[in-house]
Amino acid sequence: MADKYQQFTRTPLGKFATSKLGLPKPPVLRRYRPGQPPLDGPALLGAAPGGRLEKTLAAQLDSAGIEIVRAPSEGTRYGALVFDATGITDPTQLRELYSFFHPVIRDIGPSGRVVVLGTPPELVEGRERIAQRALEGFTRTVGKELKRGATSQLVYVAAGAEEASESTTRFLLSAKSAFVDGQVIRVGTVGTKTAQAPADWAKPLDGKVALVTGASRGIGAAIAEVLARDGAHVVALDIPAQGGELSAVANRVHGSALQLDITADDAPQRLADHLTQRHGGVDIVVHNAGITRDKTLAKMSESAWDAVITVNLAAQLAVNDKLLADGVLREGGRIIGVSSIAGIAGNVGQSNYATSKAGVIGMVNEAAPRMAERGGTINAVAPGFIETQMTAKVPLMIREFGRRLSSLAQGGLPVDVAETIAWYANPASAAVNGNVVRVCGQGFLGA
Amino acid sequence: MADKYQQFTRTPLGKFATSKLGLPKPPVLRRYRPGQPPLDGPALLGAAPGGRLEKTLAAQLDSAGIEIVRAPSEGTRYGALVFDATGITDPTQLRELYSFFHPVIRDIGPSGRVVVLGTPPELVEGRERIAQRALEGFTRTVGKELKRGATSQLVYVAAGAEEASESTTRFLLSAKSAFVDGQVIRVGTVGTKTAQAPADWAKPLDGKVALVTGASRGIGAAIAEVLARDGAHVVALDIPAQGGELSAVANRVHGSALQLDITADDAPQRLADHLTQRHGGVDIVVHNAGITRDKTLAKMSESAWDAVITVNLAAQLAVNDKLLADGVLREGGRIIGVSSIAGIAGNVGQSNYATSKAGVIGMVNEAAPRMAERGGTINAVAPGFIETQMTAKVPLMIREFGRRLSSLAQGGLPVDVAETIAWYANPASAAVNGNVVRVCGQGFLGA
Repeated sequence: MADKYQQFTRTPLGKFATSKLGLPKPPVLRRYRPGQPPLDGPALLGAAPGGRLEKTLAAQLDSAGIEIVRAPSEGTRYGALVFDATGITDPTQLRELYSFFHPVIRDIGPSGRVVVLGTPPELVEGRERIAQRALEGFTRTVGKELKRGATSQLVYVAAGAEEASESTTRFLLSAKSAFVDGQVIRVGTVGTKTAQAPADWAKPLDGKVALVTGASRGIGAAIAEVLARDGAHVVALDIPAQGGELSAVANRVHGSALQLDITADDAPQRLADHLTQRHGGVDIVVHNAGITRDKTLAKMSESAWDAVITVNLAAQLAVNDKLLADGVLREGGRIIGVSSIAGIAGNVGQSNYATSKAGVIGMVNEAAPRMAERGGTINAVAPGFIETQMTAKVPLMIREFGRRLSSLAQGGLPVDVAETIAWYANPASAAVNGNVVRVCGQGFLGA
Repeated sequence: MADKYQQFTRTPLGKFATSKLGLPKPPVLRRYRPGQPPLDGPALLGAAPGGRLEKTLAAQLDSAGIEIVRAPSEGTRYGALVFDATGITDPTQLRELYSFFHPVIRDIGPSGRVVVLGTPPELVEGRERIAQRALEGFTRTVGKELKRGATSQLVYVAAGAEEASESTTRFLLSAKSAFVDGQVIRVGTVGTKTAQAPADWAKPLDGKVALVTGASRGIGAAIAEVLARDGAHVVALDIPAQGGELSAVANRVHGSALQLDITADDAPQRLADHLTQRHGGVDIVVHNAGITRDKTLAKMSESAWDAVITVNLAAQLAVNDKLLADGVLREGGRIIGVSSIAGIAGNVGQSNYATSKAGVIGMVNEAAPRMAERGGTINAVAPGFIETQMTAKVPLMIREFGRRLSSLAQGGLPVDVAETIAWYANPASAAVNGNVVRVCGQGFLGA
């Protein structure tokens, strides 16, 4: 699945050319395979004095089968550097970041992980609030400085939600988060601060029913596969015109196919009926279906505007309303939206698409407190440059630009988006609510 | 002050080369000169049905001497397209954006202005919240599509703060906001929803005392000049080693010079004494002083870390505390921070700088409610690529990259940062509190 340039850089001629010309050498990212070691090397765990997460983190790493190291030692190649920064209550104490990372940042291995954990700034006051907000400048810079596929994230864990951070710690340290980089994640800030670990972390979705829209190909097919791998029964939905490919996906994941145009007036009712009658309800709803109708605003037709807003936003809201009103989405249910870097930063030729995808962020913000009331969550992913049939049609130079201009110097794969969605869907992510996480390799083309 | 490439593109050879090779042709941005017409052409004013801002906007445009047009007419070259989107309460109504802008977006003149006004999503509920949040995807895309120096912004005006939006409307429509593009601004969301128009919009700071740190050169000197132009007495502060240049700036702006190292233990006290004894207090504090000590984290010295955090963040907090505790900052006072795109997105070689500048955002968030209690405000600018002595030292290719990779295809000037600060400082901006506005030409190198 590597792009052609990436393949070229691995040939003898490519190695010579990239080294002589100083061209980017996209690393091969470590990706998840069942049974692989959780990390390629031990995790160095540190904390600023007075932190409240270190013990929990140690237990989480231990439970994940990760070897923990407490003090740096010469010659060690770390799989991860994990730092509890919750003890930092004044900007002068930010030097604790420097003291921990400076001596060891070079010793992180390929596809290594930096995770800094802090306290949500908006939940504390005074100097602590300022110092905690400052962490973001640090972790984003580290993400840009790291090479060879290593990533850097900041996780803000609300007081009381320490235990509920386990699914997030595991996801970010694992190879599942290969293309997530430079992100800021909040745990326990909207709704519950607790979560239940699954009986089996390799099958966290056992017994769950997951609806995936736009499931016949690309990112949607990858989502179906990953949720099924994690134990869910997948209801793969797409428009009738995609029926053949849809059946193939449904068969492959031992799920079921549902041909439905979600923009039809009666679609919410038909969907609710189907889920209730066939499956007794649904636990996970992934609004992956989306279309583009690109033109600059001056050249865009009214129908292109309407179609994109309808499919990418309005139809999803109608479905949510129906599934919630009728109790089809079971208690503890999850809604997961697919936004886009275009929804965050805007994009030439995509005024309709960017508006709809910014609206998906609005959908998450609006519904998160309501979902929390019924023990559920709503979050979104915002893919950056992902290698799909859709992006294969992007002109070559722009495609190359999108790929290389990121911390990881490459595009992501559909599975990277799917893994992030699976993290949201995990029952252990009950305290992960209201987040919008980019799956963009810390793409530089931002807002 | 145009960069060499920009100068080249205006020569006959340069015009030929850029057109043949498809190279970017950075437009000459219209910048403010006292007495110039407020806009190069009329403003087309529109509204979604049910909006609450249209009347206020019409009065504001009229008061600014801007010709208002209510319906598009063939052949008109607009100075601005202004749209009240507060009436949009459902995503399907987002088509109002399309209907207003699609037929006329091509008819906007050089350095023209698009301003969309909405309701802060976090202050409303349900579908309205989602639709209002979606506006951001639209205005950011329009900013990227517009050519020839035109810009696009979104202003969220809280209900009740309609009248208080005048300084913001004027700033965004004027040539003062030349390098502000693709931004989202909130009015009336933290603290007061009212504001008083100045007696003279050309001298809004008459009778005010403004402290500017790091004022001896670059952006600091430009801030001193612009605040003085607007009527303020400027206390220009810098370290003793900059004494000569500092005096020159102070003389030029008919202000006073204060040699002081703000990181000294007794600096807050000495500053408070100086401002009280010489000026009876201060109205505007601009924390412009900042340093860089760039190295990757692996190579950074502890002293480089500490120096940057101290100058760019800790010392500013100590000064704020003192000026507030002793009542040196007068009622209605303004504190203005200088963050950076690096503080938002991180930057290679700047883990210390990015941390400090993310902390400045934390400073704004933390202090905004406290400032509001005393009738004051705190906001920050986040400069992108600005042409200064500091950026002249950046390696050529990276500099070119930083310049061209933005909607305006060029770096900004120090005066662009200064004008944004003057907007915050304006007494009419009393309801502009807690904002962080990038002055970056919608630079693509974002978070």
